[in-house]
Amino acid sequence: MKTLTVELGQRSYPIAIAPHLLQQRAWVTPYVRAQQVCIVTNDTVAPLYLAQTRALFAQFNCSEVILPDGEAYKTLETLNLIFDHLLQQRCDRQVTLVALGGGVIGDTTGFAAACYQRGVPFIQIPTTLLSQVDSSVGGKTGVNHALGKNMIGAFYQPQCVLIDINTLNTLPDQELSAGFAEVVKYGLINDLAFFEWLEQHAEALIKRDPDRLIEAIAHCCQNKADIVAADEQESGLRALLNLGHTFGHAIETGVGYGVCLHGEAVAIGMVLAAKLSARHGWLSADDVQRIIRLLKRFHLPVTLPKTLTAQQIYELMQVDKKVKAGQLRLVLLSALGQAIITKDYDPHYLQLTLEEGCAEAMSA
Amino acid sequence: MKTLTVELGQRSYPIAIAPHLLQQRAWVTPYVRAQQVCIVTNDTVAPLYLAQTRALFAQFNCSEVILPDGEAYKTLETLNLIFDHLLQQRCDRQVTLVALGGGVIGDTTGFAAACYQRGVPFIQIPTTLLSQVDSSVGGKTGVNHALGKNMIGAFYQPQCVLIDINTLNTLPDQELSAGFAEVVKYGLINDLAFFEWLEQHAEALIKRDPDRLIEAIAHCCQNKADIVAADEQESGLRALLNLGHTFGHAIETGVGYGVCLHGEAVAIGMVLAAKLSARHGWLSADDVQRIIRLLKRFHLPVTLPKTLTAQQIYELMQVDKKVKAGQLRLVLLSALGQAIITKDYDPHYLQLTLEEGCAEAMSA
Repeated sequence: MKTLTVELGQRSYPIAIAPHLLQQRAWVTPYVRAQQVCIVTNDTVAPLYLAQTRALFAQFNCSEVILPDGEAYKTLETLNLIFDHLLQQRCDRQVTLVALGGGVIGDTTGFAAACYQRGVPFIQIPTTLLSQVDSSVGGKTGVNHALGKNMIGAFYQPQCVLIDINTLNTLPDQELSAGFAEVVKYGLINDLAFFEWLEQHAEALIKRDPDRLIEAIAHCCQNKADIVAADEQESGLRALLNLGHTFGHAIETGVGYGVCLHGEAVAIGMVLAAKLSARHGWLSADDVQRIIRLLKRFHLPVTLPKTLTAQQIYELMQVDKKVKAGQLRLVLLSALGQAIITKDYDPHYLQLTLEEGCAEAMSA
Repeated sequence: MKTLTVELGQRSYPIAIAPHLLQQRAWVTPYVRAQQVCIVTNDTVAPLYLAQTRALFAQFNCSEVILPDGEAYKTLETLNLIFDHLLQQRCDRQVTLVALGGGVIGDTTGFAAACYQRGVPFIQIPTTLLSQVDSSVGGKTGVNHALGKNMIGAFYQPQCVLIDINTLNTLPDQELSAGFAEVVKYGLINDLAFFEWLEQHAEALIKRDPDRLIEAIAHCCQNKADIVAADEQESGLRALLNLGHTFGHAIETGVGYGVCLHGEAVAIGMVLAAKLSARHGWLSADDVQRIIRLLKRFHLPVTLPKTLTAQQIYELMQVDKKVKAGQLRLVLLSALGQAIITKDYDPHYLQLTLEEGCAEAMSA
């Protein structure tokens, strides 16, 4: 088992990564505060892992909420379904919520935990690669709004994160690929050596080699834990984790939640960020191609969906959380393996990059 | 002007109490973070104070949301109206929300500020006595759920609290009275001298004597600030501020939000808490009568609404946030001017107190 710690003083918490963790009661039970446990999951994950998870918490008074699966349900309405259940079950302030599923379940459940009776403890059990390497760590919780992704939420840290890599065995190929978009992201942000390691091990990873997966996941979690410990509330450094996300969120909102996987949108967004960076002369054309090649080896899309116009994407990008005094800041690459957050890009280059991207999509 | 500070380290903030504060730009403007300001108010308060408040923030880029008035609108749906507006106006993470109104506006706006883009600053401008002495101070924010009051929320502190006592001149008599329920509460909890001061000045206060009002409001705010500084997240001491509230919330939920004013329900709840305390021998029958007399001088109800049964109230009380491991804890009085939180009351006495209260209501 690999164990890491997110260092946040009194709110520090561990991340455990191993196969068969869902069978190891001894590890997780110390993180349950009292007798009540409520597992929140969705109708895809429930048939696969709910029974195991119920057994994991068998010594507690355990109930569950099963939500519909999908980004389209990451809403205030779904949040209210969780509150309905908690109140019907008379769950008190000592209840521990357990998020069993991917990023949508983790974000929604974490936000429910942040708000229920003004805050109850929760545990993350991420079952997708994307949530294991990214969304389950760091305390960003929330739901979407029709006018923007993740616009409503809280910074709220879990008690622990339990990553059983066996859950990846049932993950559809497309979702596994989507997860690797976030894995590649860590390499691009500040870790050229990891980017190169991924270039060496892409085939083993996509074939779900357990040892390589544990290595990659632990590396990403450590990377994220370090960034979160340095900047929990995203006043600076942490924003780098949004590489590809401002473009990506606009794509997701533009095509409608759930049409395009988050990781896929991020992959396309990273390519656009790389191309925009290249227009400024910060990245060579070769570097851009190297990024595209690696993403393709993980079977990720690298071009925009045909249904969007450059103007649409541009406008959707303006509601990003990184807008400050009307000025959109972007995470771009000043070199391969080195991201920066900046408002000093040429808006004309941004337009050109989007237009070129759309033209390329149409001709594909 | 009286100025107090709620001492919470880096999140400390001032409370100013004076007439004509809504005309004093110099005091409030340092607490606005950037250019965007959004005033949240309701359709009762807007015709009275929105123009003044807009003028107060005239140097900023200021917009407003006007919500329907009433506890019935303290919901997730209303919260979403605020988010709709903020996103339509492209408000970013630097926007300052301004809560202009009573407790419902303050709680809802504060919670919107806690959640919008995972947290933006906000300013409290309470316009009712109840919100001035209680809900605007201390960072409890949130909305109601059909199954329980204030069940969804966050601890989230404002940048400052601006109390212009002139706003009390337009407050309906019934709402002024409701505010005095919370004022009396501070005397009962830990301040017998203040209880006695209220017995001396009840008539001046109910006649809205400005100097007496400032004195009473400042006293309550100081009292609350001290308690919040000692126990922000209500792990102990702060729960005492809920004297009368477990009964009160059950009454409010039972009759339907908005039928009975919060302060009125708290007044009835404090009488029930006093009577239950007396059954345990902690309070004399004379003390109970003294409390009832003072509440009546503020024109507050002291008996239950006829429409509720003892069983209904009892059941509604069980969803209280102070329930721990299935055991309801109550704030009771161990003496006049001395509250305690305890699970060591006789549940049979609680039943008797509720039944007696309902019988009294029917015969009234």
